Amino acid sequence: MPSDRSAVTLAVSTVVFALRPDPATGALTLWLPLVRRIREPYEGMWALPGGPLGEDEDLAASARRTLDVTTGLQPHYLEQLYCFGDVDRSPSQRVVSVVYWTLVRADEDASALERPGAENVEWFAADDVATHPGRLAFDHTTILAYALDRLRAKITYSPIAHAFLPAEFTLAELRAVYEGVLRRPLDPANFRRQILAQGTVEPTGGHREGTRHRPPALYRSNPARSRATLTIPADQEIPS
Amino acid sequence: MPSDRSAVTLAVSTVVFALRPDPATGALTLWLPLVRRIREPYEGMWALPGGPLGEDEDLAASARRTLDVTTGLQPHYLEQLYCFGDVDRSPSQRVVSVVYWTLVRADEDASALERPGAENVEWFAADDVATHPGRLAFDHTTILAYALDRLRAKITYSPIAHAFLPAEFTLAELRAVYEGVLRRPLDPANFRRQILAQGTVEPTGGHREGTRHRPPALYRSNPARSRATLTIPADQEIPS
Repeated sequence: MPSDRSAVTLAVSTVVFALRPDPATGALTLWLPLVRRIREPYEGMWALPGGPLGEDEDLAASARRTLDVTTGLQPHYLEQLYCFGDVDRSPSQRVVSVVYWTLVRADEDASALERPGAENVEWFAADDVATHPGRLAFDHTTILAYALDRLRAKITYSPIAHAFLPAEFTLAELRAVYEGVLRRPLDPANFRRQILAQGTVEPTGGHREGTRHRPPALYRSNPARSRATLTIPADQEIPS
Repeated sequence: MPSDRSAVTLAVSTVVFALRPDPATGALTLWLPLVRRIREPYEGMWALPGGPLGEDEDLAASARRTLDVTTGLQPHYLEQLYCFGDVDRSPSQRVVSVVYWTLVRADEDASALERPGAENVEWFAADDVATHPGRLAFDHTTILAYALDRLRAKITYSPIAHAFLPAEFTLAELRAVYEGVLRRPLDPANFRRQILAQGTVEPTGGHREGTRHRPPALYRSNPARSRATLTIPADQEIPS
């Protein structure tokens, strides 16, 4: 622990991921909000929502404040992603950014869309931005690519996909989340078998009404398996 | 990104884990080095090695510098663990700590032991310290407990255990690492079957010589499965 103040500025920024349907196909795609910079450095370019940490503000509180101001979002899922601190990541001064990420449910996204957006805030297709370096200020393209990698990795070994969904969902809705995040179709029967084998969801006993054929069963997160692959079973099996 | 400097000090600290054998039983236990504080706040108490981030220093470079100064360790495995930034975690000023962690091989640990230790640095049994709140300054007991939790979780779904071992190792040596980290015996036959099923190790073709019975086979990390559970196989299987 230091006794002197370091000459480093600390900022908190957030990568927001929402899954929005393609108007033509209905397939889900990852989108995120960006803020247009109105001063140097990088004036006119886009950046992740964020700002300097207030002296009396916890890290997550700072992320929530700038998210609310820029997008109106008050997301239920907010986690620390990584701390980025390379010496040369900001041209004019040394800035270390603690980056959070949030996954937005469709209903949260809809509320944010209804609200008049803050000036200089727009939503973009995440992979389009991540694959066009030079659109984002600072090292934010690197941060976005890292967040996409983490999401695509974590969805394969944790129930993080549930954060995009309401409390009750069908297996088809869950599969659509996986397909949107992973950007490829998954075999419905294989998907069903593997998700049920994981034990990360449990049937609610209810069904989705209002569909044409037989109503599909509803599921919810199984709280006992919220860290499914992180649990070592009592019989000393090491999950592969 | 901020245009003003925030009034927050940024520090970098490191949790170092080495596995040391119990003199009586030979069983491995997690140990870590701590630094005795020589000024207020928390004068006389123990803290993780660390200090304020230099303005021209990357985060990992800062962790490596303080580790070298305090313990002589220059570990090959160093990763960011988490950023701790609660408002009240330091009494006199606002400090945000980016915490790294490192896993030390026995040969690295032996080199550090041969070297005269820095004044006010001692090694402690990690779980003993973590379960006695009040021995560590600031929120370092919380940080240590978090690091232990992460290590015990991550060893079940990643090849992180290899970081404690030299490039070539027997399955019995690998099992001893798991047993030391998880603090309980594992069935040798089950362990062997599961590790080989994971595909995270591959035989070198060589054997450990100098043993009394038939020489055990040597293994090394399989680079193709360095992020074993993070890989989605081509057949669209979702790892459970």
